[in-house]
Amino acid sequence: MGTSSRCVASCACSLLVPDARAGRLARLTEALGAAHLDALLITSLPNIRYLTGFSGTSALLVVTARDALFITDFRYQTQAAAEVEAVATVHIEPQSLWTGLWRLLPGHPAVEIVGFESVHLVHRDFQRLLEAGSRWQWRPASDLVEDQRERKDSDEVALISEAAQIAVRALARTLPEVRAGLTELAIAGVLEHALRVEGSEGFPFPSIVASGARSALPHARSSSKRVHEGDLLLLDFGAEYRGYCADVTRTFVVGRATPEQREIHETVRIANERAVAGIRPGMRGRDADALARSYIEQRGLGELFGHSLGHGLGLEVHEAPRLSRVAETLLPPGAVVTIEPGIYRAGWGGVRIEDDVHLAPDGPVILTHFARELIELS
Amino acid sequence: MGTSSRCVASCACSLLVPDARAGRLARLTEALGAAHLDALLITSLPNIRYLTGFSGTSALLVVTARDALFITDFRYQTQAAAEVEAVATVHIEPQSLWTGLWRLLPGHPAVEIVGFESVHLVHRDFQRLLEAGSRWQWRPASDLVEDQRERKDSDEVALISEAAQIAVRALARTLPEVRAGLTELAIAGVLEHALRVEGSEGFPFPSIVASGARSALPHARSSSKRVHEGDLLLLDFGAEYRGYCADVTRTFVVGRATPEQREIHETVRIANERAVAGIRPGMRGRDADALARSYIEQRGLGELFGHSLGHGLGLEVHEAPRLSRVAETLLPPGAVVTIEPGIYRAGWGGVRIEDDVHLAPDGPVILTHFARELIELS
Repeated sequence: MGTSSRCVASCACSLLVPDARAGRLARLTEALGAAHLDALLITSLPNIRYLTGFSGTSALLVVTARDALFITDFRYQTQAAAEVEAVATVHIEPQSLWTGLWRLLPGHPAVEIVGFESVHLVHRDFQRLLEAGSRWQWRPASDLVEDQRERKDSDEVALISEAAQIAVRALARTLPEVRAGLTELAIAGVLEHALRVEGSEGFPFPSIVASGARSALPHARSSSKRVHEGDLLLLDFGAEYRGYCADVTRTFVVGRATPEQREIHETVRIANERAVAGIRPGMRGRDADALARSYIEQRGLGELFGHSLGHGLGLEVHEAPRLSRVAETLLPPGAVVTIEPGIYRAGWGGVRIEDDVHLAPDGPVILTHFARELIELS
Repeated sequence: MGTSSRCVASCACSLLVPDARAGRLARLTEALGAAHLDALLITSLPNIRYLTGFSGTSALLVVTARDALFITDFRYQTQAAAEVEAVATVHIEPQSLWTGLWRLLPGHPAVEIVGFESVHLVHRDFQRLLEAGSRWQWRPASDLVEDQRERKDSDEVALISEAAQIAVRALARTLPEVRAGLTELAIAGVLEHALRVEGSEGFPFPSIVASGARSALPHARSSSKRVHEGDLLLLDFGAEYRGYCADVTRTFVVGRATPEQREIHETVRIANERAVAGIRPGMRGRDADALARSYIEQRGLGELFGHSLGHGLGLEVHEAPRLSRVAETLLPPGAVVTIEPGIYRAGWGGVRIEDDVHLAPDGPVILTHFARELIELS
């Protein structure tokens, strides 16, 4: 992610980023007060990036009521100065990040009770807190940053939208190259090349190119199977732009589609359309899931839609909120979520159509503009 | 990693895999006895893959003195049956993996003291052990599986070697496409396409394509910077074959090299050559590091080689052993390690040459066969 220093230096969004980060830190400080914590130790790199702009892979962040301490290693000296200094005190630690923590924390005598991220700290590091950090009281905390990250601001939506545009442009470049006889891996290669040419900084998850019966596997990656005439071809892939992710799926037929392939595809397409049109902030996750699921169930195919409708999207490709049969929490305004109904028949194949949607105050806004009707690739 | 069921079904290595796994489980059982543990809860997916062959992304494994319990979710029912059943009892858990654990563990009354992987279990899951699992005694454990993984058997070396061949074939395909004017991201795309065409199952780490002064950044990824005539061009990338990783770096000049570029490149090449020729099992990691470092220091450039010489390679792209200035542990026979000296001059550029080497009993065996002399790309 060495590209992000460019972002701070030159892109249009850079003027807004420092303000956004200051607001995020201020809101976190309020949340700390409500949780009776003097400080929070942040070990999740996406959370650190959200709060400080740091795009590297080695850092600790401590946020107190008064300030933010950022600790990284010598490799990131220049980058941390460019990305982080506007909102946090940067410390370059020659030994380990933990050594830096024990050196710096005593300089904040008002800090006694410190939260840590229970789902982002391994047991060995928890032991460090109890041993080397025995003079502080350590309290497990959850979702203090993630809760904020659910509601995207307009700059974040613009970055996700750019990632989505990279993804769909790459897909458009890829389709003319697809033909029977190629392996799934080779098609993944064409797609990934196109993603890079269009500007994707990385691959947020392993691309799925699954053909024929393999398209019914809920956990497929790409294999050396060759694509045959008549195969369903499912492409599920991501793009990354300035740290923000897009996640898109389309399913095609190589050659002419059978009536059954057409019918299943059309059912999934309508389920996707209904969910995209009907989803609103303030709805429970399970009710959003039902927008698509109820239609598939009406068609007698509910058993074949074995996963949830979607998930939040942002600095991570899977984040809150969840859109599933059991999600009771309300979808916050500003969230960006995937809508990805699917129908999978073991031994036959599967169809999934996935879009990224911003839950804007005035209604849902689709970020992934690419045909949803069945395309026959010839 | 949906491809691995193919492996069990069809590849030559499949005949040997069940035996290898049984031996690994038996050695782990011995290690448990020595550590006074009745069982080990394994949460690291690479460790689970090593012991059982499972290539999916959701599983828990418990190894006791008598047997191995494998827990996964419904998505992996077919795959787990194909990959795991020969060496462990497979349980498909409809709720969470943890629910499965609390259901199954009481069936083993002899198990009282259970180790867990301290560096592979987040605090929240550790809390689960103390709360839902309060009838057992939980003990943090480290490296019980990783210690075995350091010594590769011949099947593992063959798989890493295949990944290495994929990597160098992809590099050979890529070079004719490189020219001034392309962005680093576009070159990454060409390389990643070639990796897929050659059969790489994935990208073990984000490919680094760094040109000009960016080649001196120790943490560079690929950016939208265009490559210019005369630039150093550093490519550091991986390949994956049946779960095993290769990791290769070569540095080129786009157009004609300057005398300084030639001189730095030649220094790195000789440092690489000395380390590859001199490394032996039984040597301390720091002594292996010194094979290359001492030469670079003799040339007065020691300050510009700011990282360690290399690392182990296997199911993970970074694993034990370490080859660094401070590594006191001995290199075990059978390890596969990277040898990757580099020289980096800020603002000017950097050169790194990285090979993968098997520490065979009879001496080091290079797995990455690709020219190390400076190539000028035109």
